[in-house]
Amino acid sequence: MSNIPFTRAEYAERFAQVKGRMAIAGFDLIVCQDPANMGWLTGFDGWSFYVPQCVLVHRDEETPIWFGRAQDAKSAHLTTYLPAKNIVPFSEHLIQHPVGHPYDELAELIRARGWSKARIGVEMDAHYYTARCHAHLTNGLPEAAFSNNGDLVNWARLVKSDAELVLMREAGQICSHAMNRAIEVMRPGVPQYQVIAEIYHAQTIGVPGAGGDYAAICPLMPVGEGTSTPHLTWSDAPLPTSGLAMLEIAGARRRYHAPLTRTIHLGKPPQAITDVAKAVVEGVDAGLAKAKSGNTAAEVEGAWQAVLRKHGLKKESRVGYSIGLAYPPDWGERTVSLRPGDETALQAGMCFHIQSGVWLQDFGVAISESFVVTDTGGERLCDVARELIVID
Amino acid sequence: MSNIPFTRAEYAERFAQVKGRMAIAGFDLIVCQDPANMGWLTGFDGWSFYVPQCVLVHRDEETPIWFGRAQDAKSAHLTTYLPAKNIVPFSEHLIQHPVGHPYDELAELIRARGWSKARIGVEMDAHYYTARCHAHLTNGLPEAAFSNNGDLVNWARLVKSDAELVLMREAGQICSHAMNRAIEVMRPGVPQYQVIAEIYHAQTIGVPGAGGDYAAICPLMPVGEGTSTPHLTWSDAPLPTSGLAMLEIAGARRRYHAPLTRTIHLGKPPQAITDVAKAVVEGVDAGLAKAKSGNTAAEVEGAWQAVLRKHGLKKESRVGYSIGLAYPPDWGERTVSLRPGDETALQAGMCFHIQSGVWLQDFGVAISESFVVTDTGGERLCDVARELIVID
Repeated sequence: MSNIPFTRAEYAERFAQVKGRMAIAGFDLIVCQDPANMGWLTGFDGWSFYVPQCVLVHRDEETPIWFGRAQDAKSAHLTTYLPAKNIVPFSEHLIQHPVGHPYDELAELIRARGWSKARIGVEMDAHYYTARCHAHLTNGLPEAAFSNNGDLVNWARLVKSDAELVLMREAGQICSHAMNRAIEVMRPGVPQYQVIAEIYHAQTIGVPGAGGDYAAICPLMPVGEGTSTPHLTWSDAPLPTSGLAMLEIAGARRRYHAPLTRTIHLGKPPQAITDVAKAVVEGVDAGLAKAKSGNTAAEVEGAWQAVLRKHGLKKESRVGYSIGLAYPPDWGERTVSLRPGDETALQAGMCFHIQSGVWLQDFGVAISESFVVTDTGGERLCDVARELIVID
Repeated sequence: MSNIPFTRAEYAERFAQVKGRMAIAGFDLIVCQDPANMGWLTGFDGWSFYVPQCVLVHRDEETPIWFGRAQDAKSAHLTTYLPAKNIVPFSEHLIQHPVGHPYDELAELIRARGWSKARIGVEMDAHYYTARCHAHLTNGLPEAAFSNNGDLVNWARLVKSDAELVLMREAGQICSHAMNRAIEVMRPGVPQYQVIAEIYHAQTIGVPGAGGDYAAICPLMPVGEGTSTPHLTWSDAPLPTSGLAMLEIAGARRRYHAPLTRTIHLGKPPQAITDVAKAVVEGVDAGLAKAKSGNTAAEVEGAWQAVLRKHGLKKESRVGYSIGLAYPPDWGERTVSLRPGDETALQAGMCFHIQSGVWLQDFGVAISESFVVTDTGGERLCDVARELIVID
């Protein structure tokens, strides 16, 4: 299929890398339900992750195995290079069945392949690997040795290939376009949904040569006191004549994400807010300067936090996380965090969102960047004015 | 807060209903992680469901308890009527921690309230109640009696109140607006992302008096052979000069959803496709006529299937499911399915999406409706031309 985002060679390399990690960790088989892991391993794409489905990697197989709903098996044929024999549908009547479960048939498949005593690594922490998925799979394979694979594939995704970086950079351009469009239309009295409608439009149109994909998180736009908490969405209310609004959005290109946060003040901002914004931007710069290969994730956070401390501020939550291929509900990769204690050594090609923001009692200010690690520091993926944006 | 979608009285009634169901099922405490259940019980809203969070209902408490990330606790204060003492944050360092987990602290909270030996019902099947959530919660409460609560709150949501039906009807209007807009812009040669951009814009702008909310599923638009599988998303490719496209989208109003599917043929359609479309619409009519209080979910499916059979067609998968309040990744409620064996008796106020479609080897045709059950049949929530839409 011409519409698969990467070459056969690239998928083969990923597969080999994952097998290597499996050998080290002592797994014969891993079950990957995170849709980003499924997509990264095979190309599989489609909004079918609301039902149980997964990709299996077995140390003796030459390709992954896709397992999912019968009506989605055709999507696997259309969006992957997998051989037909490794696209395995489950019975439709098991969808949302009170007693049976699709993973009863997954257990059967694993038995049928002769792997019933395998050392099996599952993604205990993946969003859609529910308690019930795990119960049915383990009950169906009483002789297997199950353990958490510790997001093994997520970790394999950490350093992006050149082909992935092309998509990350396009995602950054799409994000910049959408953010700038939002800032253009934000005016006192404009209904919040109108700003969001323009963001969605710009996110999807994308930029010349690179159409947009859906983002793993909807546009977030807390307004006023809502800026003191990061995950509120919009309402019918008009933007105020005076006050704060925060925008956190991503550009997505073929499921690769570059998120960005900007803070907007309608009307003349109080000095206190201007001061926080300056500190936050200075913090980003310190973080980006530190984000070069060889330094640790914790060091990036430390550099950021030192600037904030100088200005009498601090952030309790982590200041960033790795990004890349993503599906709802999150555009983070759930691996490296920019926070104290994360001693991961940065390598060129890792990508992060440094969420440079503080959420105080009554308001918040955040001015973030998505970046790729290079040998000289963090290279920004987006290009939007880096300041408190004042709409007067 | 003025922005909470329902009155205190409505939330109190829901809470009482859930307690009644808990008494019958023999639970002292239920843990609700499905974001739709959290929202339905309390009003809580925000895109924070990518981290562990939940609402607890205990039989002796006067209100639910919200448990979640510290930075999202403020969202709980802003979007619910919950008393401050029942909004409980967990420690930030537990986010995506390899060893610790937020539900270690949830177990602590449950112990601190004296409920360590409670009969606890968890949502084994909820999308975000991961295997790891369950492991940490059960390990932390070794004396409790855990079992699956069988989507107890989802079942309580099945019959909509009058206030909910207002939002469902507005969602239907928003959906109609967005679908009609899509049909207006679909022309041969138009890039797929452009159609989707217009859909997102229309979904979000909504209709006069009712702004749109984000839908739990992104716009689905399989094209050509892609119409033989239901969950493919768009690409950069232009719409063909001749061929099929299918659109499945929802209108969302304050998290209430009305989905709709239409099938579009660019250029003159082959007779075979026109014939399938006619059968599919006739099937919907038969289903809607049967969808009155007292009849069963299975009877609706039977009426639909009988029409299709008459035309030599059949659908393997269920023909519909209950709808209402929803968050990604699904706009179904995971309770009643319109399929053989589902003997749920319909009641006025239940809402469904009848996914009247067939996915054949090389193409598919679907013309669906969202509807509310009444004493005389299914009342459609959307109003879009019910036919194969030909763009010539």
